[in-house]
Amino acid sequence: MYLENIDSPADVKKLDKEARVVLAQELRDALMNRLSKKGGHFGPNFGIVEATIALHYVFDSPKDKFVFDVSHQSYCHKMLTGRKDAYLYEEHFTDVSGYTNPDESEHDFFNVGHTSTSVSLASGLAKARDLKGETGNVIAIIGDGSLSGGEALEGLDYAAELGGNFIIVVNDNDMSIAENHGGLYKNLKELRETKGTAPCNLFKAMGLDYLYVDEGNNVEALIEAFEKVKDIDHPVVVHIHTQKGKGYKLAEENRENWHWSSPFNVETGERFAKGGGESYASLTSAYLLDKMKKDEKVVVVTAAMPTNIGFTADKRKEAGKQFIDVGIAEEHGVAFVSGLAKNGAKPVFSTHSSFMQRTYDQISQDLCINGNPATLLVNTASIYGMSDVTHLGIFDIPMMSNIPNLVYLAPTNSEEYFAMLDWSIEQDQYPVAVRIPCNGVHHTQEPVDADYGELNRYKVTQEGSQVAILALGDFYQLGEQVAEAIKTHTGVAPTLINPRYITGLDEALLSDLKKNHTTVITLEDGSLEGGFGEKIARFYGSSDMKVYNYGLKKEFIDRYKVSELLEENHLTPELIVADIF
Amino acid sequence: MYLENIDSPADVKKLDKEARVVLAQELRDALMNRLSKKGGHFGPNFGIVEATIALHYVFDSPKDKFVFDVSHQSYCHKMLTGRKDAYLYEEHFTDVSGYTNPDESEHDFFNVGHTSTSVSLASGLAKARDLKGETGNVIAIIGDGSLSGGEALEGLDYAAELGGNFIIVVNDNDMSIAENHGGLYKNLKELRETKGTAPCNLFKAMGLDYLYVDEGNNVEALIEAFEKVKDIDHPVVVHIHTQKGKGYKLAEENRENWHWSSPFNVETGERFAKGGGESYASLTSAYLLDKMKKDEKVVVVTAAMPTNIGFTADKRKEAGKQFIDVGIAEEHGVAFVSGLAKNGAKPVFSTHSSFMQRTYDQISQDLCINGNPATLLVNTASIYGMSDVTHLGIFDIPMMSNIPNLVYLAPTNSEEYFAMLDWSIEQDQYPVAVRIPCNGVHHTQEPVDADYGELNRYKVTQEGSQVAILALGDFYQLGEQVAEAIKTHTGVAPTLINPRYITGLDEALLSDLKKNHTTVITLEDGSLEGGFGEKIARFYGSSDMKVYNYGLKKEFIDRYKVSELLEENHLTPELIVADIF
Repeated sequence: MYLENIDSPADVKKLDKEARVVLAQELRDALMNRLSKKGGHFGPNFGIVEATIALHYVFDSPKDKFVFDVSHQSYCHKMLTGRKDAYLYEEHFTDVSGYTNPDESEHDFFNVGHTSTSVSLASGLAKARDLKGETGNVIAIIGDGSLSGGEALEGLDYAAELGGNFIIVVNDNDMSIAENHGGLYKNLKELRETKGTAPCNLFKAMGLDYLYVDEGNNVEALIEAFEKVKDIDHPVVVHIHTQKGKGYKLAEENRENWHWSSPFNVETGERFAKGGGESYASLTSAYLLDKMKKDEKVVVVTAAMPTNIGFTADKRKEAGKQFIDVGIAEEHGVAFVSGLAKNGAKPVFSTHSSFMQRTYDQISQDLCINGNPATLLVNTASIYGMSDVTHLGIFDIPMMSNIPNLVYLAPTNSEEYFAMLDWSIEQDQYPVAVRIPCNGVHHTQEPVDADYGELNRYKVTQEGSQVAILALGDFYQLGEQVAEAIKTHTGVAPTLINPRYITGLDEALLSDLKKNHTTVITLEDGSLEGGFGEKIARFYGSSDMKVYNYGLKKEFIDRYKVSELLEENHLTPELIVADIF
Repeated sequence: MYLENIDSPADVKKLDKEARVVLAQELRDALMNRLSKKGGHFGPNFGIVEATIALHYVFDSPKDKFVFDVSHQSYCHKMLTGRKDAYLYEEHFTDVSGYTNPDESEHDFFNVGHTSTSVSLASGLAKARDLKGETGNVIAIIGDGSLSGGEALEGLDYAAELGGNFIIVVNDNDMSIAENHGGLYKNLKELRETKGTAPCNLFKAMGLDYLYVDEGNNVEALIEAFEKVKDIDHPVVVHIHTQKGKGYKLAEENRENWHWSSPFNVETGERFAKGGGESYASLTSAYLLDKMKKDEKVVVVTAAMPTNIGFTADKRKEAGKQFIDVGIAEEHGVAFVSGLAKNGAKPVFSTHSSFMQRTYDQISQDLCINGNPATLLVNTASIYGMSDVTHLGIFDIPMMSNIPNLVYLAPTNSEEYFAMLDWSIEQDQYPVAVRIPCNGVHHTQEPVDADYGELNRYKVTQEGSQVAILALGDFYQLGEQVAEAIKTHTGVAPTLINPRYITGLDEALLSDLKKNHTTVITLEDGSLEGGFGEKIARFYGSSDMKVYNYGLKKEFIDRYKVSELLEENHLTPELIVADIF
């Protein structure tokens, strides 16, 4: 086995042509070993096996610097740079993250996880090299799906002015997470069909030199191309045509389904974890599809993550012209729904909390200054969301809730979530965001309000005294537990409140609490700084009320265990009682 | 005079060819009247006179909908849609804002002020029209300078998939605010030189239909082109070649200087307001130029606003390869400096507070997760900055300071500002942002620290008791006045503190204050929600300390008077004393 003897890229360079072919198969076997047992990004890594071998054969990492876009396709790179054990041996699976990580290796330059950043980051490395008078190649590796993101397009446009060595490998597998969207993909298709010779060429129109490689899964063809551009004295795009999921028939045939996979049976492709039970993804798409059928003005917009609110291919088809995936283009997505709302449609835009970060200015300028009644659905906005440092769902409250005019709602169960969403779609006064619950599908027997138009009215769900608990959104259930623990500890039942509105204070209720409460506790499922609790602390700042804010301390956390994170931040009934009494 | 009789676009349609030529001159005269006396965007409006006449002649606003990018070129549109008095008569100058504004007219659809948003916003109007089964044209008007922004490129790419009527007028005057930057401008040049016939065409590469108009300042040529695309059934780009500043020789010759102008002498072009005195713009560029000469690793990056930190054309030339304007591409700018810092350069990126909003995700992901030691200089971050609702400098503290790993500094005078900037450039531990003071250039005789590496150490500048004032950044001078007023009122001198660090608490000092203080006042030059003061309120939440937070309430304000805004938010020594005692 060659792979077992590869401790660094130098070992790749020793292999001859035949050995490189064997190595490609060994890399796929190792990928299959890890992915079938632990899960991860399947299609992108199976497609880039040969390119990774060729890159490490031709260039000299880390003097030559690779920057992988998103870096979800860096598994083979990791195997060839001293981290093969994490793919070969189950006991080493947790040694590596799913993305490039400078803490793991000198061959990784950035912690990356969002799309479309590689060209800009790599151009910084290249410019610094030139300022220092050093040599070496800088290579950005970006997939076709990432090209539609604004940051990538800004980076490509700038790259033409950079001067000096800079190589952009466009890994074109004709696929985003789902299918691609956007006019530029017609051009990529034309370039593939003409073997790169079509006179109208996006990259040349951006001022860049260009080279096409049709056989992007042929190591030798790639080596030839990379050797041509090695040490080039100006920016160049190497457009390679690859097959997503290459080498595993099921993944080649159903590319969307195999972009990412949970653990599966290698023989059948069957996933071990059965969905089963309710999920907010399927509930949300079912609700929205029904809504669309009743009202042709309802339109759902996603940015390359349609299945995260349940819009699988069949449901997208069912929604027809009322469903729009704009591709990886979150900025456009938010501005687009502002325009839709302005002209009388009822638009809903959804993406993950951490990808919503790309739209701060669009939420502020395009949407909220204009006060257009679009709905933003914020997904995986929770400690129960994704735990990779690049995908944390704990910063959306500080980011979004301090923007004027936005009404940001935090439902506490399924019924309240859909009531809020329905109200938001039907009202025409405010830009509204709704934080999709993420702590399992809770149901309530209590009636929930249908109208949220009288803003910032908190709901008292348990009347009590001495202590009041403001338990926001996903932490409402924790609030119930805290209330119980306090009652047990003190013998006095506290007041429990569902604030519902993240973006404003119920000043009348908060003032009223002063009458028979001495202490207020806030609970929020996110970072404390700039969040909800601090606003409560400010409100009571000059009064005698004692305020305790619970949430997460401000820090980037990576691959955390939820239970440990809760403990560390005193987010358990026991620790809260111990803090206060 | 034709203009005096134009109350709506219907009146434009009545004019014949000769009258349209006269109208163009009358519009320029009216522009000159307002701009020479009140100031405003000069070059963009002088260049788009003919196109505006042709647009209103051919299309039927507001059924046909115009969306102006940035909308700083909408003055002639305003004149032709019932708002001519604001240009003809000085007593009506304040009737209109400098941007499109739905509160002014049914012919305006969005409050706009940031670049690169028009295509996405307009595509939303178009899609809503189609969902409702209505007809009419939707027309986005975007300048060449705005094309490099990520949101615009995302929008163009998406537009090709939109289907239905959609017209994108690219107003190409071969100029951004300063010169354009980016590879796509080579393609625009090629298209201009070939009268639109070059086979490599950015817009076609984005999947769009395309029409070129060489004489973009010829009303008749434009009418012919617009009539061709009126009621078209698919998206099309109309690329018109115009002359920025057309009709005023000085502006045609020095386009950067005449992009925007303060009031001036029409005969000589001389500006009435003489700069004179110190400004942070010229001080900053002088400091940075000196720094670059001493260290070739220092590199300054701006995004189309170089003069805002004093980098006029001569100084850009002087800086040579160590100065980079990336054009309107803020996302790229921040990711680029992260890459520069990672590879050992000492980069500084600067833009306005309100444009920094475009980079939330880049600050978080590309810069702060990676902990790279780049410096961000945040300009006009203050109530003393720009007062247009789209350009407010009061939200950067909530936006940036809650991002982990960032060190955000608030200097209180010139000496402290340059000491902080120098420390930031030389250190290699943290991403650092510095809020450039904006309340005039204050100097101090007191020594300022050179090393800010021990984070979150606040500085006590006046020892006192009972009351402590935390006076952040630009509001330090207000803090001095408040201290004086309290001493006068109570007879007891309060403690005055310069917090310096926006992004962290000096917990030792804050705890220590409990010994002989009962009250803490915070002052910050920005929106209170999610800001600095709330963190102090949280810190003292469960103690007996009374905390009063002063800053701005969360709202979008427009063309405010600073003195009135201060009063409204109780930001005067008298009102603060009255609140507390």
